[in-house]
Amino acid sequence: MLKVGIIGVGTVGASVANILEQNSDIIEARCGKKIVPIVGIVRDVSRDRGVSIPLSTNMDDVLENSEVDVVIELMGGVEGPFEVVKKALQNGKAVVTANKALLAYHRYSLQDIAGDIPIGFEASVAGGIPIIKALREGLSANHIESIKGIMNGTCNFILTKMMSEKVEFKDVLDEAQKLGYAEADPTFDVGGFDAAHKLLILASIAYGIHANPEDILIEGIEHINSEDIFFAKEFGYNIKHLTIAKKCANNKVELRAHAALVPSSQMIAKVDDVMNGISVIGDRVGETMYYGPGAGGDATASAVIADLIDIARVGQSSPMLGFKRDLEGGGLTLLNSDEIETKYYMRIKVSDEIGVLTKITSILGDFGISVDSFLQKPDSSDKSLATLLFSTHKCKELDVQNAMNEIAKLSTCREKPVMIRIED
Amino acid sequence: MLKVGIIGVGTVGASVANILEQNSDIIEARCGKKIVPIVGIVRDVSRDRGVSIPLSTNMDDVLENSEVDVVIELMGGVEGPFEVVKKALQNGKAVVTANKALLAYHRYSLQDIAGDIPIGFEASVAGGIPIIKALREGLSANHIESIKGIMNGTCNFILTKMMSEKVEFKDVLDEAQKLGYAEADPTFDVGGFDAAHKLLILASIAYGIHANPEDILIEGIEHINSEDIFFAKEFGYNIKHLTIAKKCANNKVELRAHAALVPSSQMIAKVDDVMNGISVIGDRVGETMYYGPGAGGDATASAVIADLIDIARVGQSSPMLGFKRDLEGGGLTLLNSDEIETKYYMRIKVSDEIGVLTKITSILGDFGISVDSFLQKPDSSDKSLATLLFSTHKCKELDVQNAMNEIAKLSTCREKPVMIRIED
Repeated sequence: MLKVGIIGVGTVGASVANILEQNSDIIEARCGKKIVPIVGIVRDVSRDRGVSIPLSTNMDDVLENSEVDVVIELMGGVEGPFEVVKKALQNGKAVVTANKALLAYHRYSLQDIAGDIPIGFEASVAGGIPIIKALREGLSANHIESIKGIMNGTCNFILTKMMSEKVEFKDVLDEAQKLGYAEADPTFDVGGFDAAHKLLILASIAYGIHANPEDILIEGIEHINSEDIFFAKEFGYNIKHLTIAKKCANNKVELRAHAALVPSSQMIAKVDDVMNGISVIGDRVGETMYYGPGAGGDATASAVIADLIDIARVGQSSPMLGFKRDLEGGGLTLLNSDEIETKYYMRIKVSDEIGVLTKITSILGDFGISVDSFLQKPDSSDKSLATLLFSTHKCKELDVQNAMNEIAKLSTCREKPVMIRIED
Repeated sequence: MLKVGIIGVGTVGASVANILEQNSDIIEARCGKKIVPIVGIVRDVSRDRGVSIPLSTNMDDVLENSEVDVVIELMGGVEGPFEVVKKALQNGKAVVTANKALLAYHRYSLQDIAGDIPIGFEASVAGGIPIIKALREGLSANHIESIKGIMNGTCNFILTKMMSEKVEFKDVLDEAQKLGYAEADPTFDVGGFDAAHKLLILASIAYGIHANPEDILIEGIEHINSEDIFFAKEFGYNIKHLTIAKKCANNKVELRAHAALVPSSQMIAKVDDVMNGISVIGDRVGETMYYGPGAGGDATASAVIADLIDIARVGQSSPMLGFKRDLEGGGLTLLNSDEIETKYYMRIKVSDEIGVLTKITSILGDFGISVDSFLQKPDSSDKSLATLLFSTHKCKELDVQNAMNEIAKLSTCREKPVMIRIED
């Protein structure tokens, strides 16, 4: 029997407790042991959580409980959970966590502290999709060339609605909040931070790369409007919020989370609504893609319990972050965001005057930026304005940022220009 | 160091040997050991295989070689490989195989013989997609409700072409053969047998169900024509060759491999060309889908080596067929194919006479079959003929088979009626 203590009995914690009970037949058949939750830690024991396990407010009822084999950390936050998980490991208890923020900051420290004690975190990335396992074990023969993920359901729901109906960001966000797909303060999701945390976890497994959220390019979807959608449709793209990890020259790795135009024909572009999808390209296997629900109590609990079953079956099935030792000949390091090379789309609102297009294209030319497609739209409300929509050939991030700054300074430029990267 | 002998150095075997050499940096970092192929067994040592390992024609150079830790079986066939794998296991060697036919027939015997010795077979289903691992470990908390897979690249290539261009089966098959996507004798692929073998393997892991290819419904795609494609497009379906495993009432499991009309909006319907995709619905996680290359030397070798790395890391990461012991309260048994309930599409070529439609609909009515959509098309070459295209509401396989037999007996029925199941 494997005995489990759950710290944090919210939606996911309650699902874990209930599935362990309700699916105990399949779980026991699969691992040859009973897995039994024996205590849950909450702030307020008087609130009904819909679970039958005993509740306590005292963390030590799990951490110092010699009966508990595995601690499931579902608290939320970063430093609090870090202390809790550290203590659990120091007391020799295995840990399963769904906490992406914790791992985005402390995964390497936790790996060091854990040593041979298992830490499972399948639930921390893309909810019910077993992407950690796929990357760490299923694709282990490959050098990973790139990962492109749709890893935030809120962003994907909003962008899918914007593509399929003619609605602006703000209106869909309101709807998403009403449907419970977006938080009251949606910044963590629509600002790209949640997805970036998950990306850092995958990047460790793919590349063994140490980086914190502050080190990488993170943008959200708040700047996308219906004109961008129009351009995307016109040229056969979907707009998605992507997390990207990509191996580039000189042992560098690009890590970034931002909205992107993705060719509609790509499999990842077909991942709609609140669903998540992760496309991984390995040097030998080519492209594989993983699709499923990225959130929700039961889906997340499915991943938490998969980790428990792995622990019950064999202890730890593979090294926590996928590597038993560093790559020889120098590991990989993070590419400076300025050095990113990709294609870009730009939206520039200007006074509809003679010469304005020449000025803008000459600025682009000065920075070595070559235009691929171009659309000009008159403004629907103000006839004196026009919107210029460009896509470029491949160029450097820094050049694009500089060109955008120059364009923004033009007296004929009437709004801060908007840029979306193109990934094809 | 883990030493490996490869029996069968064809496309996949050569890829395994070469990737072990060329990606040794990442492989060693991931498992903490070197994995070294030390000998390959072939029929003819004089032929160049593009590998640097020593070759031999004597199987015992692997099976009786005390240096060899793991035997990779890539021979093809069923009984020959069974003897080889049995001997390897009896000699205490771990086994990795890509042989779906071997497993379709002998997986339970092999599990018994192996005991605690690892057998890896990730490569046997859907090539480079880590679907065995996803199902056996990633979704282990779930009762599996259904699996729907596109698991034969040849079928998918042909059907994708038939949908996108106006071409008949025979012509695309010719093209597929020229491109190397179909064998000279394509029956094993286009007849649905290859996919059915893979389905049986997944069904064991999902349901612990014993069944042989002969026990289940297997159909191919040879009967599909451009009229079926027309109907599918008209009503928003794609036609795909699906493998289906589905839990139904009374602890029964449906297993079948056949062409099906699938709503175009479903993720699995978007898996095109030679790619494979498997959608799995778990009772807790909901739908997850896995997409990637189902064949090819390097993609298949990627899965073979993932198994080797698992063995190097921990021995066996989980029980071979996913279960440590049977489900309590009676395991699941196979549903008789006659009892399958789904929706159906039918194509019936008739003399364009008064009363023929009435006769056909009354036969359908006699068997309790209710029509959902109906299209009548005049024959393009013979004005005296018409093609009737029906889709039905849910009904029983046996009733449909009986109704089709009755309809075939009508003097006005001018060709054997064709039926395709609808999965939505």
